[in-house]
Amino acid sequence: METQPLTPAPKKIILDCDPGHDDAVALLLAHGNPDIELLAVTTVVGNQTLEKVTRNALSVATIAGITGVPFAAGCDRPLVRTIETAPSIHGETGMDGPDQPESTIVLDPRHAVDLIIETVMAHEPGTVTLVPTAGLTNIAMAVRKEPRIVERVKEVVLMGGGYHVGNWSAVAEFNIIIDPEAAHIVFNEKWPVVMVGLDLTHQALATPEIVDRIAAIGTKPAKFVIELMEFFTKTYKDAQGFEYPPVHDPCAVAYVIDATVMTTRKVPVDIELQGKLTLGMTVADFRTPAPDDCHTSVAVDLDHKKFWDLVTDAIVRIGEPDAGAPATMAAGLTAAGGAK
Amino acid sequence: METQPLTPAPKKIILDCDPGHDDAVALLLAHGNPDIELLAVTTVVGNQTLEKVTRNALSVATIAGITGVPFAAGCDRPLVRTIETAPSIHGETGMDGPDQPESTIVLDPRHAVDLIIETVMAHEPGTVTLVPTAGLTNIAMAVRKEPRIVERVKEVVLMGGGYHVGNWSAVAEFNIIIDPEAAHIVFNEKWPVVMVGLDLTHQALATPEIVDRIAAIGTKPAKFVIELMEFFTKTYKDAQGFEYPPVHDPCAVAYVIDATVMTTRKVPVDIELQGKLTLGMTVADFRTPAPDDCHTSVAVDLDHKKFWDLVTDAIVRIGEPDAGAPATMAAGLTAAGGAK
Amino acid sequence: METQPLTPAPKKIILDCDPGHDDAVALLLAHGNPDIELLAVTTVVGNQTLEKVTRNALSVATIAGITGVPFAAGCDRPLVRTIETAPSIHGETGMDGPDQPESTIVLDPRHAVDLIIETVMAHEPGTVTLVPTAGLTNIAMAVRKEPRIVERVKEVVLMGGGYHVGNWSAVAEFNIIIDPEAAHIVFNEKWPVVMVGLDLTHQALATPEIVDRIAAIGTKPAKFVIELMEFFTKTYKDAQGFEYPPVHDPCAVAYVIDATVMTTRKVPVDIELQGKLTLGMTVADFRTPAPDDCHTSVAVDLDHKKFWDLVTDAIVRIGEPDAGAPATMAAGLTAAGGAK
Amino acid sequence: METQPLTPAPKKIILDCDPGHDDAVALLLAHGNPDIELLAVTTVVGNQTLEKVTRNALSVATIAGITGVPFAAGCDRPLVRTIETAPSIHGETGMDGPDQPESTIVLDPRHAVDLIIETVMAHEPGTVTLVPTAGLTNIAMAVRKEPRIVERVKEVVLMGGGYHVGNWSAVAEFNIIIDPEAAHIVFNEKWPVVMVGLDLTHQALATPEIVDRIAAIGTKPAKFVIELMEFFTKTYKDAQGFEYPPVHDPCAVAYVIDATVMTTRKVPVDIELQGKLTLGMTVADFRTPAPDDCHTSVAVDLDHKKFWDLVTDAIVRIGEPDAGAPATMAAGLTAAGGAK
Repeated sequence: METQPLTPAPKKIILDCDPGHDDAVALLLAHGNPDIELLAVTTVVGNQTLEKVTRNALSVATIAGITGVPFAAGCDRPLVRTIETAPSIHGETGMDGPDQPESTIVLDPRHAVDLIIETVMAHEPGTVTLVPTAGLTNIAMAVRKEPRIVERVKEVVLMGGGYHVGNWSAVAEFNIIIDPEAAHIVFNEKWPVVMVGLDLTHQALATPEIVDRIAAIGTKPAKFVIELMEFFTKTYKDAQGFEYPPVHDPCAVAYVIDATVMTTRKVPVDIELQGKLTLGMTVADFRTPAPDDCHTSVAVDLDHKKFWDLVTDAIVRIGEPDAGAPATMAAGLTAAGGAK
Repeated sequence: METQPLTPAPKKIILDCDPGHDDAVALLLAHGNPDIELLAVTTVVGNQTLEKVTRNALSVATIAGITGVPFAAGCDRPLVRTIETAPSIHGETGMDGPDQPESTIVLDPRHAVDLIIETVMAHEPGTVTLVPTAGLTNIAMAVRKEPRIVERVKEVVLMGGGYHVGNWSAVAEFNIIIDPEAAHIVFNEKWPVVMVGLDLTHQALATPEIVDRIAAIGTKPAKFVIELMEFFTKTYKDAQGFEYPPVHDPCAVAYVIDATVMTTRKVPVDIELQGKLTLGMTVADFRTPAPDDCHTSVAVDLDHKKFWDLVTDAIVRIGEPDAGAPATMAAGLTAAGGAK
Repeated sequence: METQPLTPAPKKIILDCDPGHDDAVALLLAHGNPDIELLAVTTVVGNQTLEKVTRNALSVATIAGITGVPFAAGCDRPLVRTIETAPSIHGETGMDGPDQPESTIVLDPRHAVDLIIETVMAHEPGTVTLVPTAGLTNIAMAVRKEPRIVERVKEVVLMGGGYHVGNWSAVAEFNIIIDPEAAHIVFNEKWPVVMVGLDLTHQALATPEIVDRIAAIGTKPAKFVIELMEFFTKTYKDAQGFEYPPVHDPCAVAYVIDATVMTTRKVPVDIELQGKLTLGMTVADFRTPAPDDCHTSVAVDLDHKKFWDLVTDAIVRIGEPDAGAPATMAAGLTAAGGAK
Repeated sequence: METQPLTPAPKKIILDCDPGHDDAVALLLAHGNPDIELLAVTTVVGNQTLEKVTRNALSVATIAGITGVPFAAGCDRPLVRTIETAPSIHGETGMDGPDQPESTIVLDPRHAVDLIIETVMAHEPGTVTLVPTAGLTNIAMAVRKEPRIVERVKEVVLMGGGYHVGNWSAVAEFNIIIDPEAAHIVFNEKWPVVMVGLDLTHQALATPEIVDRIAAIGTKPAKFVIELMEFFTKTYKDAQGFEYPPVHDPCAVAYVIDATVMTTRKVPVDIELQGKLTLGMTVADFRTPAPDDCHTSVAVDLDHKKFWDLVTDAIVRIGEPDAGAPATMAAGLTAAGGAK
């Protein structure tokens, strides 16, 4: 008699984000993928002000039909530095492009820092993954307020940094440089940190083929993604000279779903806080093999097809939330999705 | 017919401390002085670990018979830097010298950061003064978590820094240099900040005459203070070459009680975060008159007699808490105390 | 039989300057005082460009009738930082106010750095004092090019810095902050360094009484000084709020002539190179007695009368250089001058 | 009738070095290659003390039979930082391994800084290339002492730095980090700078095949190189985990001989002076195409065969200097050499 292999339990994550075009896609991926259990969504100043990115997060939740997941707003400014947002990339609303529905979702009354702490402490040790796709202010505050989360968290899979690539300076990335002290805190705690940085995410380009594939899904969430990508394509071309925009944030979620979507390398990483040219650089030391107790690793190479399969599959699964029913998934399911 | 002049309402304070010999005296002064209403006592890593200074705070509360005031523990390490304590001054327990009673006081379950926020938000705007006499980690965390406390707090009267004097480096003081980023946060918020620094507190020396006067009170709290001062005298002589020890922290409380106990000067103050020789310096710019919107001031000259009158008066008023009855206050009341 | 007391040999100095109103007075003092033997005058970018301050130095030499002293131009920019000059204080020419004669003096063909090195090495060890009254670029270059000058120089008596006072930032002085790396080099070599900083020179005010006294001398050099002071008075009032201008640079020369013109204190001094608020600060560590091998000291209190006696006496002695004859010195000689 | 193509004039270089195993090979390459005219050799503290590297340079000159080229010693310490040498790589003498002959060559009496300046100024503008293969102290001093060399020098082709690779820290290379201020000076002057950094030189490995090929030459200079490589192989394995040692310095000389030996990319490069983790990093900004006035470029890919052909060819040409006669060159000449 044959036994059925057990389906692994979905991975519990807290998504800490600042939507943000690519944060929106990350949220859709987390919601639509059956291997992810979204415990909470928290917001933090970053691509735009806290007020704007929080509104955007609720809009995405409405579009995607996310229910039963607490959303909470967090810090409205970085720990030490003054606020720097990214309207050149994300526009004045932080998520320019598509029309945004008024959301009826009510924010959780707790501060994001407390929601993170309470969620982590309420689950079994080693079961909750933090997925920050924004500046690390909330996470840093949480770990300073409740240091015990360090050993309870399974790992921190963050979008940010770059060991050989910068975007907000020659060698620093936006999410890190806007709150380098917070990043220093997060990278120096002894939990496992997987840095999904620009080295990796600049491979996650939304090429015309990808855009066409998402367009073909035909649902409202798919249309929403397409409109996000249209705006993102334009600003990335104008502001940074990219032919196709790199869709950073869902890469971190994709890693949690299936680590084989990218290769990673164990390497000590620390954050430069004093540099004039290098402030906020994620300094990785590749000179010698990483020591055994090295708790940081960096993402290196992306499986482009597998990544976009996960994204499109999630959008397909989300279907038409307004209609109260999932889309007919069979038609659109990719190999990645179909395997589940 | 004569009318009685109205007694002004006592000043509501939250004491954020790391006892610490001089923190203990600050707590006794705050408790014993009738013009202070002690709303809460919070602790933070500093002179010793969080665990030790919290235990010390409860010991002092027991010795002084403080009841009905919430005590809460806060951050166990600075925001960014690694922990640095001061055993050379305060010994291994952080309050070496006197025997410490086991305290029966139960800590408030809240984190100090939340106790600070909730206490400030629960009182009328402009009525609560924060009195930090330690590293500023808790206060910085509170203001980042709940920015609205800035406009609700009356002022921040802190012991720390020095515009022309350092102790933990040539130009930096212990409370600031152990968490310079937290100090940067606190000094850069637009609430009124009175910096009672080493320039002032090095005038608050516990001379033999002062020690004799406190000894003459004869109560257990007085004896406790004497034993604190004996240890403090020795370590300040050995570690920093002082003939008599500067009793820093009660100066900040004394200022809240009676601002005429010292002169102050309005001057812009900021915290150096990058310096190699000057990290944590409280940089005051005396070059030109302070601008109208300058929200920082520094303490300059102490009225030594008035200060110690306040301290001894408070100890007299505390009496013998164990005996369940106040001491006969009349005998020991000083001019300062007697005027009330 | 009576023996004549030996007249001490005059002090040999190299004046490294950036005239500059107060540099001009320093040069007149060095030339007019009989206890100084002026070996060389070198110029360096500072108050104005190298070209301008060099022209100014030659003008002063012409006005004062200085002959037989080599003048050489040095570095035209700081070691690492970009050029910053002080037109708000010294005007567009660097010595605005008086008309400047065309000088017929020919510059020494050597670079100032080489003139300094060769002059020091050509004299007996321990006989030559360096008197920099500008940024320290030339001196730093000289000591890096010929390290042996360190043990041959008698001492470095420099105008610059301030242990508790800044002028070009809250805590830094112009001569140091314009080339902090050069200052770091000079203060860290093991020769004796006397820092005549703002703490001292802000006592050297050209009060109306002083100005009147110089005016009364009636010679062309005296008139030149008066015109310098008129301009200097105005800019110091407008730019820094001074009632009377501090005449910094001759203080350093005065110290070489007669060290009792000021009190000094031995204290370790180092230069901050990394600070954001404190770049170029001369960090003095007063916490404990200076160690025996401490080679730096700072000027503290000025004998205002003795200082200005030296200056006026020198101007009197210079007389009317154009006339080819010294002024009638008897009339104007002060106590300080008359004693010689 | 056929015309003979004109032989291009040899490239005039000044080699500023700190031998150093790979500096020695660079010197041999410069001497042995007919397309290089070695105008001067200057030394500077780096791999070892100035005294040791100067002695080493003269030893190499003796072994290679270099005559008629002035050798001068320069700075014995970095501009601002304290001395750091590299005995872990180059041993106690700075060129451990082979026996070193006593050299009979007499040093030029001039300081290296003056020799560099005078040599550059004595030749036609645009004809002299500076080839620093050490810390940049001498070059920085020269350009500050005589700024006119900037427009007279053809270009600066230096071994140092690394846009994605470090060796003396995670992101900084030895020649730059030992005197970052000097490097900042050199990279910020507007002469063309070609940075031949670790990105390139870690491709210039002395593999066993290369070593065998040099051994086969059979001359004393070849034997000397082999002994250098034996030591270098061992220390690079022990200290930095390399299987075969990267022979950095001759790469810069090779570029001058034949720029096609490597690819380069125009990119703005600046030096980090403030970083805690990144001090001395050569920060290259690859985000956008280099501006037209970009005067810096970095070496990217090495033609390994062409490079080692140049080196072995030069050793062959040097022959047996002791014997007073060149080796029989025909036998050993490679394609690269034979083309001349």
